[in-house]
Amino acid sequence: MSRSFRDEASWVKFISSRWRNSRADVSIGDDACVLPAASYAVTTDALLEGVDFMTSWAPPRAVGCKALAVNLSDLAAMGASPSFFLITLCIPEDLPDSYVEGVIEGMKELSEREGVSCCGGDLSSSRSGLVISITLFGEVVGEPLLRSDGRAGDYLFVSGTLGAPAEALHSFMSGAKLPVFDSAIPPVSGEDKLLDRFFRPPSQRELGVFLAEYGIATCAIDVSDGFVVDLHRLCEASGVGAEIEKASLPVDPLLEGLSPADRLKRVLYGGEEQVLLFGVDPAYLERVRSSSFPVRCVGRLVKRPGIVLVSPDGRHEKLAAKGFDHFDC
Amino acid sequence: MSRSFRDEASWVKFISSRWRNSRADVSIGDDACVLPAASYAVTTDALLEGVDFMTSWAPPRAVGCKALAVNLSDLAAMGASPSFFLITLCIPEDLPDSYVEGVIEGMKELSEREGVSCCGGDLSSSRSGLVISITLFGEVVGEPLLRSDGRAGDYLFVSGTLGAPAEALHSFMSGAKLPVFDSAIPPVSGEDKLLDRFFRPPSQRELGVFLAEYGIATCAIDVSDGFVVDLHRLCEASGVGAEIEKASLPVDPLLEGLSPADRLKRVLYGGEEQVLLFGVDPAYLERVRSSSFPVRCVGRLVKRPGIVLVSPDGRHEKLAAKGFDHFDC
Repeated sequence: MSRSFRDEASWVKFISSRWRNSRADVSIGDDACVLPAASYAVTTDALLEGVDFMTSWAPPRAVGCKALAVNLSDLAAMGASPSFFLITLCIPEDLPDSYVEGVIEGMKELSEREGVSCCGGDLSSSRSGLVISITLFGEVVGEPLLRSDGRAGDYLFVSGTLGAPAEALHSFMSGAKLPVFDSAIPPVSGEDKLLDRFFRPPSQRELGVFLAEYGIATCAIDVSDGFVVDLHRLCEASGVGAEIEKASLPVDPLLEGLSPADRLKRVLYGGEEQVLLFGVDPAYLERVRSSSFPVRCVGRLVKRPGIVLVSPDGRHEKLAAKGFDHFDC
Repeated sequence: MSRSFRDEASWVKFISSRWRNSRADVSIGDDACVLPAASYAVTTDALLEGVDFMTSWAPPRAVGCKALAVNLSDLAAMGASPSFFLITLCIPEDLPDSYVEGVIEGMKELSEREGVSCCGGDLSSSRSGLVISITLFGEVVGEPLLRSDGRAGDYLFVSGTLGAPAEALHSFMSGAKLPVFDSAIPPVSGEDKLLDRFFRPPSQRELGVFLAEYGIATCAIDVSDGFVVDLHRLCEASGVGAEIEKASLPVDPLLEGLSPADRLKRVLYGGEEQVLLFGVDPAYLERVRSSSFPVRCVGRLVKRPGIVLVSPDGRHEKLAAKGFDHFDC
């Protein structure tokens, strides 16, 4: 396959045509964009071909969707409402234009559902592999949710099931491919449902805003490198420890076929979840439990440092802070 | 050379230690940073090893300096005063940590001089080649300077000499190396002075703010892909043409040894200048000329589309809009 060689101006035109109605004061096409005055939370996260995905198993729309989604969950973890983003694309010569167009279409579809628009970016050629870096802006609603404000006694919640993305990645590494990614109609069953989940994390936007706007969460983090390692980061920043109830962990039903040991491994140490992990003051416990969000209480923050997994029989097991490291994969 | 393998947490710590006193409300170390409320202009620009530089001829501090500088000139071209930036680094396994540390130190040195601080970013491994992407924020002073507000009759100015970076790149491609990059003491003469200029564009910050704050410039663009191609972009966005006085072009004295034809080629079509090209209403002509900025009037915007080079003997030559394309290098 060889590229049809869109030039830089043609890519800028293509991207501009996808996000015509940006509410930015100055959008794509100048030296910089200008955003409406506000207090912005800003996050940036990149996906790299050969590191985060392979074109051989990742449909381009799926990659575009995920590239934006990983940023959306970071912003939700701050309690910010997303509004604008920048796209940086470094495009290798041997990648067909159609793949890059698919990536942009995948971003476009998710951006419409989430009410955000692209207002700028940067284009470059790449010596090897597609690089997609997104910078996402959102307005802070109430006080930003930090990792560092958790207190001993807070209940710990996660906002979705755990383990499926790690199992999907395992399948991809073993030769599985997702044949198609339809932004509107996700696969309803079978292996494709599992593989699809890798690229399509559930939206955390409304939950993030709910937790920040009413001061319900004391602290929050996006689970992206693994439940235990991200919980460890939260605990370390807050100067506390955590006790997790093993029986409360929201194991994804898609892990049904796995052995209990493999299941637990995926749930505790798998990455790419893009769900929120947050602390809740006991006074707000019922408010969170009675909300319509698919949240699950998994334990509590405690004074004693370290993370302890409590089995139904009362056994305590200390968990090491291991998980996904971006230089160890 | 093999890396000493800093892990992700260690890089975050290293970067945090370099920008401790950020004025951001939330800085490095959470899921997103939070900026003080304002109307921000935002730009993003990436440098890639193998595309924009080679580690064989580019000292790491020079690369870090340039990675930030290309963003600073984009923001100056909007008339915005820079304040915060995000760093995305994609680090290949075979690159020594010391090179990456040098890149960060180079950024740090320039950031101190320009009064900006890093408040977040993203780290990843890279399959091939170092990728450095920066997103820079600045507050808009007065009305933002756009490419699209130029009018026929405006005087055209450039804010520095032209041609040296293109000649430096030519030298690098022919085997030249810059042995060292000292942020505080630039080389004063010889080939190293030329090579150094490639990485050390003059600061445009104060000029950009001056032009926007008092409504002096009607339009502006950062010259990064070549004088003619960027002038063409400015003209196209403003719906005008331009007449350039050949004798007024600010040829860099470092091009002295070149033939007149090569010199003109570098000045008109060389990229990487990172100086401003801007339009000035005749009413403000003297104000600009009498300012302390090293600006040069090179011609005027005219009604008739296209760019015309006017020789001292009155000959008119139409210039094609060619220059650096990021997919044609």
